[in-house]
Amino acid sequence: MPLISIIPNFHPKNDARLLERAEQLRPVLYRQIVQPEGGFILKERYSPDREEIRLQQLRELPFTKGQNLCLDFGTHIVGRVSLDFAFKGSHPDAPAFLKFKFAETLDELSENSAEYHGWISSGWIQEEYVHLDEIPTHLHLERRYAFRYLKITVLDTSPKYQLLVRHAECRTESSADWRRLEKRSYGDAELDRISETGLRTLANCMQEVYEDGPKRDRRLWTGDMRLQALVNASSFRNMDLTKRCLYLFAGSRFPDGRVAACVFTGKHTEADDTWLFDYALFFVDALEEYLSETGDDEALRDLYPIAREQLQYSLSLCGDDGLLKSESAADAFIDWTEGLDKAAAAQCVLIDSLGYGVRLAERCGDSVSAARWRSEQARLRKAAVKSFYRAEENKVISNGQFSVASQVWAVLADLVEGEQAVELMRSLADYDGPYGMMTPYAHHYYLMALLKCGLKAEALDHIRYYWGSMIRAGADTFFEAWDPKDPKASPYGGAIVNSCCHAWSCTPAYILYKYY
Amino acid sequence: MPLISIIPNFHPKNDARLLERAEQLRPVLYRQIVQPEGGFILKERYSPDREEIRLQQLRELPFTKGQNLCLDFGTHIVGRVSLDFAFKGSHPDAPAFLKFKFAETLDELSENSAEYHGWISSGWIQEEYVHLDEIPTHLHLERRYAFRYLKITVLDTSPKYQLLVRHAECRTESSADWRRLEKRSYGDAELDRISETGLRTLANCMQEVYEDGPKRDRRLWTGDMRLQALVNASSFRNMDLTKRCLYLFAGSRFPDGRVAACVFTGKHTEADDTWLFDYALFFVDALEEYLSETGDDEALRDLYPIAREQLQYSLSLCGDDGLLKSESAADAFIDWTEGLDKAAAAQCVLIDSLGYGVRLAERCGDSVSAARWRSEQARLRKAAVKSFYRAEENKVISNGQFSVASQVWAVLADLVEGEQAVELMRSLADYDGPYGMMTPYAHHYYLMALLKCGLKAEALDHIRYYWGSMIRAGADTFFEAWDPKDPKASPYGGAIVNSCCHAWSCTPAYILYKYY
Repeated sequence: MPLISIIPNFHPKNDARLLERAEQLRPVLYRQIVQPEGGFILKERYSPDREEIRLQQLRELPFTKGQNLCLDFGTHIVGRVSLDFAFKGSHPDAPAFLKFKFAETLDELSENSAEYHGWISSGWIQEEYVHLDEIPTHLHLERRYAFRYLKITVLDTSPKYQLLVRHAECRTESSADWRRLEKRSYGDAELDRISETGLRTLANCMQEVYEDGPKRDRRLWTGDMRLQALVNASSFRNMDLTKRCLYLFAGSRFPDGRVAACVFTGKHTEADDTWLFDYALFFVDALEEYLSETGDDEALRDLYPIAREQLQYSLSLCGDDGLLKSESAADAFIDWTEGLDKAAAAQCVLIDSLGYGVRLAERCGDSVSAARWRSEQARLRKAAVKSFYRAEENKVISNGQFSVASQVWAVLADLVEGEQAVELMRSLADYDGPYGMMTPYAHHYYLMALLKCGLKAEALDHIRYYWGSMIRAGADTFFEAWDPKDPKASPYGGAIVNSCCHAWSCTPAYILYKYY
Repeated sequence: MPLISIIPNFHPKNDARLLERAEQLRPVLYRQIVQPEGGFILKERYSPDREEIRLQQLRELPFTKGQNLCLDFGTHIVGRVSLDFAFKGSHPDAPAFLKFKFAETLDELSENSAEYHGWISSGWIQEEYVHLDEIPTHLHLERRYAFRYLKITVLDTSPKYQLLVRHAECRTESSADWRRLEKRSYGDAELDRISETGLRTLANCMQEVYEDGPKRDRRLWTGDMRLQALVNASSFRNMDLTKRCLYLFAGSRFPDGRVAACVFTGKHTEADDTWLFDYALFFVDALEEYLSETGDDEALRDLYPIAREQLQYSLSLCGDDGLLKSESAADAFIDWTEGLDKAAAAQCVLIDSLGYGVRLAERCGDSVSAARWRSEQARLRKAAVKSFYRAEENKVISNGQFSVASQVWAVLADLVEGEQAVELMRSLADYDGPYGMMTPYAHHYYLMALLKCGLKAEALDHIRYYWGSMIRAGADTFFEAWDPKDPKASPYGGAIVNSCCHAWSCTPAYILYKYY
């Protein structure tokens, strides 16, 4: 997820020991050589009926000024590309000037970067301009790309020669080891495909950290990591990657000890100057989920104090009335939904996290904290029910606003329970108002709320409807944002910067595995 | 010089022994670190009065989307550039996307590459697009550029940070060793400046071969080499470079033994499928000039047979009337002048070359060839006088056309001699017709004809007028093409592909040294 937060003169507090431990856990990257399955010529926008020309003899096809070749690598991959070029005609007397465009989807391939004026940096657009001074030549592109399609446009050669693309390959990178994966089938082609697509989405985001998206923003976010870790634990089981990411969040924090929403993990690890109320709490949840999988004493010892800090800090943001202060609720992410009131959902995230905190405290023998958080959880829940839940209508209303997110988090935090919760969740199926869900991330928590209510059939239907519709639209990996009713929508002002392999959308692979 | 000749299925004849010798002679490249002297911000087109802002504190100046910084390296240089970037603001959350434009002149800096639609490959335009994935970073650009100015345009950063250009440097490359150069002064600031500019032009073209221009086309041409070798012999005296280039021309030729106008000298040496009548003969002249400097027996033994072949081939193109056949004359270059009739000039180039051939044959003890070429020279000169020279008007007319080139070559080939030649050369000073000279290359032979006639003052005046006007227009090195009356002209449809450091323009440094 991208977010713009700017704190002038922000200097994160780094803990060398924790960062050193994270460094020791840097994963091996598994690599495979993938070659394109074929190619086609793109005329303006992609249209399978009229403009596609499948090429049998790519190697012998000469290209000259203005022509293009689109290579199709068969599915979404992440890695580094090498190409071999030769020429036809006279000895090249001028450099060939090429444009490369890497695209995750056919829509992205058809976008014109010059027409992009959205708010996310155009630096993310996967385009390169390259001169070939000597031909024949082997060209290795050092940068990593996330793509299925590679469009090569010959901006110029010279009248004396034409360019041949002799060979292309991508050396993929991922810290997911597909050999570790158990074969799984749900006896249903669509569900199998959804599971496989979720796993590919996760694997392509599993790099040296859990990246949110391998195209954009390539960053480690707590909220995304929590979901990735869940799916990883049920599939590739690279538990050290989860541990590494937890240590990275712990190792570079806000000066006052808060866990940042995001940590930059390049040459120097550095917390982003972005703090999100809910994302900081997901550090607590993710630590507890990691420990329940591994029982890792070292991680418990090193990281529990930091989890405790997050809960204590969040509790300090609540008033005597047991309600989270409104400015802190506004610091929660919850979902991209425009105008979403976050008071109820943010309070519920804290209530839910206190449960994780209690389990962590018990694991650590910290009975004082466990008791305090149990009591705080009850106090906050009571205040939330009083403030947000309208029993007569069986609805959660946050500062006058009805939203899907508020209902979902109210169910997850046990504000609404039993038959009321079932009824409430069922009622959401037909919701068509302005405060629905924008992202697969929000849809994940919606599924978790359905499952909490035992609505397994409804959850499965929703997986087929929502994630299935991405596959029906041609997805090789699941997207960052998706509205089945408006497939061309981009939250960023242009599909060219959309992230079409985004980890927070991969959870059906976990849900299907765990619940079906 | 660029030229488009295409011979389908052309396979040059390579001589492994000669090419191996050329390889052994590959020169050391001398390198220097050059840093920019300052910078300025470019608004649309360069204007010294209004838009230049000299920057004292480049290192601290933050750049964001759409802004640019032009670095001025003080004079024309050839080499590879490294830059250090840092940031201001929050930790970069997106790649910086930059455009680099290297320009030899301020005119080139102001040109818009999107508006270039000329016939020379736009692959020569010195522009790059670069993403910085990590900042701070050290960026090394692998390609070699010829430039004085580097414009860095920040296409995008992100709202979270601004870019700082902390350091820039160029590691220059040249096979000219400035330490070998004797200090020279003509007691005249303008002439000293012209000489120095000629030497810089030569040095920047002296790479692993004599390149015609280090920006474009970076190629070894016989006609250009001959002039470069003359200047080099009178200055840097890297005689092995001349020898290497002669061996390269000898080592890869047309299948029938002809010396190509140009040889590609990248990974594999390969003659271009371009043959020019006069350029092939300049191999003979250049060999003789090299031997007169060095007395190199090995080169004489290896290369004389090839020089002999060129003369014999050229003679075979003449008819019984002693005149070069018209289709062969059309294969001469002479100059870029549009519509130039080349019959007289081409015939004169051959007559002149036969003189060089005679001296080579004598050096080799090949008295048979020496005698034959002396006799052929007389026969061809006689036919030329009869066919082209109008004694009553003291003019050379080539198929009805009066051109400067025809007069110049007639004087150089002794078609016109003594007082007639002096008078003819004097008459050219006022020539303003359609068949004047287009290039410094043609102006060189004009100077040689003046000097042959003893017109030293006129030659000096012409150097001041023609080469001096380039300097007055801001030249740091001399240009490929130059018309003092139309400084903005480009023979290629856009100044952005002009070569403003072009070796065939460097000869005043030799002429001043040798004659003044």
